Amino acid sequence: MARALELAERGPAYGPNPRVGCVLLGPASQGRALPDGAAPDSLDPYPRPVLAEGYHQGAGTPHAEAAALADARARGVDVTGATAVVTLEPCAHTGRTGPCADALVAAGVAEVVHAVADPNPVATGGAHRLRAAGVRVVRGLRAAEGEELLRVWLTSVRRGTPYVTLKTATTLDGYVAAEDGTSRWITGPAAREHAHRVRAEVDAIVVGTGTLLTDDPALTARVRAHDAASAERLAEHQPLRVVVGLRGIPPTARVRGEGGELVHLLTRDVGQVLERLAEREVRHVLVEGGPTLATAFLAAGAVDELHAYVAPVLLGSGRRAVDGLGVATIADAHRFRTVEVRRVGDDALVVSRKSTEGRVG
Amino acid sequence: MARALELAERGPAYGPNPRVGCVLLGPASQGRALPDGAAPDSLDPYPRPVLAEGYHQGAGTPHAEAAALADARARGVDVTGATAVVTLEPCAHTGRTGPCADALVAAGVAEVVHAVADPNPVATGGAHRLRAAGVRVVRGLRAAEGEELLRVWLTSVRRGTPYVTLKTATTLDGYVAAEDGTSRWITGPAAREHAHRVRAEVDAIVVGTGTLLTDDPALTARVRAHDAASAERLAEHQPLRVVVGLRGIPPTARVRGEGGELVHLLTRDVGQVLERLAEREVRHVLVEGGPTLATAFLAAGAVDELHAYVAPVLLGSGRRAVDGLGVATIADAHRFRTVEVRRVGDDALVVSRKSTEGRVG
Repeated sequence: MARALELAERGPAYGPNPRVGCVLLGPASQGRALPDGAAPDSLDPYPRPVLAEGYHQGAGTPHAEAAALADARARGVDVTGATAVVTLEPCAHTGRTGPCADALVAAGVAEVVHAVADPNPVATGGAHRLRAAGVRVVRGLRAAEGEELLRVWLTSVRRGTPYVTLKTATTLDGYVAAEDGTSRWITGPAAREHAHRVRAEVDAIVVGTGTLLTDDPALTARVRAHDAASAERLAEHQPLRVVVGLRGIPPTARVRGEGGELVHLLTRDVGQVLERLAEREVRHVLVEGGPTLATAFLAAGAVDELHAYVAPVLLGSGRRAVDGLGVATIADAHRFRTVEVRRVGDDALVVSRKSTEGRVG
Repeated sequence: MARALELAERGPAYGPNPRVGCVLLGPASQGRALPDGAAPDSLDPYPRPVLAEGYHQGAGTPHAEAAALADARARGVDVTGATAVVTLEPCAHTGRTGPCADALVAAGVAEVVHAVADPNPVATGGAHRLRAAGVRVVRGLRAAEGEELLRVWLTSVRRGTPYVTLKTATTLDGYVAAEDGTSRWITGPAAREHAHRVRAEVDAIVVGTGTLLTDDPALTARVRAHDAASAERLAEHQPLRVVVGLRGIPPTARVRGEGGELVHLLTRDVGQVLERLAEREVRHVLVEGGPTLATAFLAAGAVDELHAYVAPVLLGSGRRAVDGLGVATIADAHRFRTVEVRRVGDDALVVSRKSTEGRVG
């Protein structure tokens, strides 16, 4: 399963589909078998020969199980009686590809071990279908790691709305700009580069019309070009560029330039924004500001993850990152759970998640 | 010198005296000698036998050189022709102990290698006195590491006023309390424990009368007792408890309880506070708040180091850590240089220093 998780991570973080990895192991007779049913979370007792492996490379390409079966065929390996170790329960529906459960049965696989059950209403039922065909199914192996890897996708599928990451870039005292509006640069180049890597992993970036008109951002995901130290180029994947608000987008706005598709949502309602994006199969939204939009998402309880870049700078006054959440007393504060604290150049990055996230689903 | 620096660190971080370590090495004939004068910063070419070593354990105890010579006597080792490797230039004055330069000469030491020159006006001149007695003197070996270790003491001695560390404990959006004044707890127990360890390393803690009257802090350095998981006891070293401001200290204030000496400075002037503390041989001051005092120290440009504990919490409004620095545009922001970013429990700790600090002295 450790290998399957490793393979899964090679898939793209963006896109409508989950990142899944699959390893086909030699028959159980060559090793020890787990009983049908649930597996202890951390156990991985499969010291058996690896026959083939595969992972999902994004919407429109084969699922991990199909990729592993294709790998076996390419190697000329017989998978009859094999164990398929897969990070997510094999699907039972026909989408752009056929049901993986059927493909595994057809290939003669005798056992399927998966980390996480499929919550997708249209794809679930794989385990049932496998058992009906006489395949032994073990679930929950390294489930915590599987859940962590699929966190964004699982949250989005279970809830039916995109996973929301809010990005802020502030001074140590919580400002995004000085009193006169100047803000270049509060955080440093390393933090900006990191933020661009995050942009290249999400499906959509959202800003309000206020930010659009003030900062004129391009909202593209850029990466440093390898051939020139200072040059940048567009990343391979460009997220949707979503502008929220009732004001118009100027014809000369940089957001109309090269990059992801531009979407203007004529609403100020957070719920409506998320529904419209869910319709487009957006799983992961990055909210980049400004303060009005950030505050609206926070007030709506719609922020799943917070990326706070904090610069070693004090302003004492200016434009705040978040403005008025209606919190009067400390017990009502919006409290997140820290996932990671790291130094990015001269800045700090604090990644935290909704405190109640563990209870989702 | 690496060993000498290691020894130096064993000394107390608080107190009027610098942390110094000294290693006595076998005569130069047994190894390679450096030419008299300056040494390259990173070189440490002394693969010679260690005869003895010592470090300074705080005011009133022997200096590192004296401790190392005593160690040699205790071991019955002859140090004639030896090299003394010491983190700070040996002193040339008689204080609570005699001049180390003379003691080294009397012991027959042939060579002295030190990392940092002594800037203390009453103690400097050791190298001159040694050379006059025919001792070879090499300076600047691992000077950068020596400067870092002695940073607080060197800054304080060179400038004549204490090194100032400002501590803040805020939400990600820069608040120390909610609108109704509630603040327990914004940062978590690990951050508080860490802050107490810092208190035990400084000479004085300073708060304003506002904080004293609002929070009634004890201003003691407490450590977790080893015998009980939840119990705390006072740390061995207790910093001065300094209250700044014109209002009185209530007779029942916790700051009057067990702990360091209580000092009430009837002023609001930062310069006066620092002068009064310098008179008491305070080298390191920890400013703990509240916002008025923190802002005053920042506005005066008197903050050398910033310890910002940041909790994964958003309030959107409330009482700010710093309030009004008179900064109108981003170019005038108070910018620090990050030294360390680390996770402390569920909070982040960002340690930064004055950007111009490298230019001090």
